Amino acid sequence: MAYRGQNYHGWQSQPDGNTVQDKLERALAAFVGLPDGAIVSTMCAGRTDAGVHALNQVVHFDAPVARDEFSWVRGTNRFLPDDIAVQWAQAVPADFHARNGARGRRYAYLLRQSPVRPAIEAGLCGWVFRPLDLDVMREAARALIGEHDFSSFRSSMCQALTPVKDVRGIEIAQLGDYWRFDFEANAFLHHMVRNIMGALVTIGSGAQPASWMAEILAHRQRTLAPPTFPAAGLYFLGPRYDAHLAIPERTTAHDWLPQVPPGHSRPDEGYPRQI
Amino acid sequence: MAYRGQNYHGWQSQPDGNTVQDKLERALAAFVGLPDGAIVSTMCAGRTDAGVHALNQVVHFDAPVARDEFSWVRGTNRFLPDDIAVQWAQAVPADFHARNGARGRRYAYLLRQSPVRPAIEAGLCGWVFRPLDLDVMREAARALIGEHDFSSFRSSMCQALTPVKDVRGIEIAQLGDYWRFDFEANAFLHHMVRNIMGALVTIGSGAQPASWMAEILAHRQRTLAPPTFPAAGLYFLGPRYDAHLAIPERTTAHDWLPQVPPGHSRPDEGYPRQI
Repeated sequence: MAYRGQNYHGWQSQPDGNTVQDKLERALAAFVGLPDGAIVSTMCAGRTDAGVHALNQVVHFDAPVARDEFSWVRGTNRFLPDDIAVQWAQAVPADFHARNGARGRRYAYLLRQSPVRPAIEAGLCGWVFRPLDLDVMREAARALIGEHDFSSFRSSMCQALTPVKDVRGIEIAQLGDYWRFDFEANAFLHHMVRNIMGALVTIGSGAQPASWMAEILAHRQRTLAPPTFPAAGLYFLGPRYDAHLAIPERTTAHDWLPQVPPGHSRPDEGYPRQI
Repeated sequence: MAYRGQNYHGWQSQPDGNTVQDKLERALAAFVGLPDGAIVSTMCAGRTDAGVHALNQVVHFDAPVARDEFSWVRGTNRFLPDDIAVQWAQAVPADFHARNGARGRRYAYLLRQSPVRPAIEAGLCGWVFRPLDLDVMREAARALIGEHDFSSFRSSMCQALTPVKDVRGIEIAQLGDYWRFDFEANAFLHHMVRNIMGALVTIGSGAQPASWMAEILAHRQRTLAPPTFPAAGLYFLGPRYDAHLAIPERTTAHDWLPQVPPGHSRPDEGYPRQI
């Protein structure tokens, strides 16, 4: 499913009911004709925080009735608000688990750099007014690639069993005033991307050298890293599963984010600073 | 200024105060220190309807006090909601008139074509589930180029003095699931772009031939044209003024819409259907 996180208290069900999981579980129940107040329990690939968006959140549940795959999509969407929509549905093996089966997860952070704050894209991107240096941020990001203890970028609320994660890629691209940061790892700690963003922007704006990233990482405590970046710019792009499951890795042919034009997709190729 | 129209009853001031003009006029008054309830009267280049967005709305007013240009931007923005922001300010000659001085106006319509409705971009784009034919829509659009009586695409609420407008360009580009339609004219009638969109999509989905556009236009009555397309996908890109005034024609180096990549910007060059 895809959702805009702006109006919700994140994915995880809460007593006030204003979460994406609550909206989905009630919509599924309404579609299959369960009585008012009933839910269909779900499990997602990546719990998103309040204000965080998702382009391809993957969710599994035990279907209480048999329906065509596209009926699950269209039927459930009838009971969901405008800013949440199931994008595809498919039957999976009984042992499929959206969270435990995910071999990797991808996030993007969208940032606008301009002297003036955004308006159209309020709630949909982060914002910095200081100019950023692409090469310095790329150099800093390299320190994070690989398997490391990411305690320095971990929120105190994090429930992960281990702070060791395998960061497989960080790509940074600029498109005019917009910057797009792509992250891939086996999994992420709570607030990890937003905390890394804080450090990248501190370095990119010249307040700290690129080498500061390795120092923060080695410190293994949250105390050195700069404040958590706002949720508004964060997009869960989706999980990756074993190929034989044939789970879609995106919901549209072109996602709702400024794009790196074709032919400029590799980060080391350089990227037009202004077009 | 730039604004997201989703939460407002359009540009034009109304008694309920929930319009972009009301928000701006009160913010200007607050910034210059006028008493509560006072306003600074403004005139805009293009009045937008409820739900319509603007990337570069140009507004003039008589400044009651002297301030630096950038102070007008930052100071006014402190009193504006998140989804409205002044982007630049400059002194203009005393006879400058934002509406009467505009030699042309540009709008874009953003459309998603997909079997499933949007979520992230709810309120920020239109949606069709039927596939569209680019070449057929381009052919149909050609019938509208030039000076014509556009009564067929005019809302009954329209207050324009004449239904004759000079359409200077219509460009259509596809980027994956997203379609971007760019319109330029000396001026537009009320609902003109949204009514043209209704006809283009009817033709593009195969329900009518390309030649239908010329028939509608020749009819000079609203009765033949299909329903007005939703406001959500409509963006006022801004006015054009005489070059010697040096009024900025955009607010950012890359606007908040799916873009035609560099090297594919001319409509006749063809455009990748999928990337």
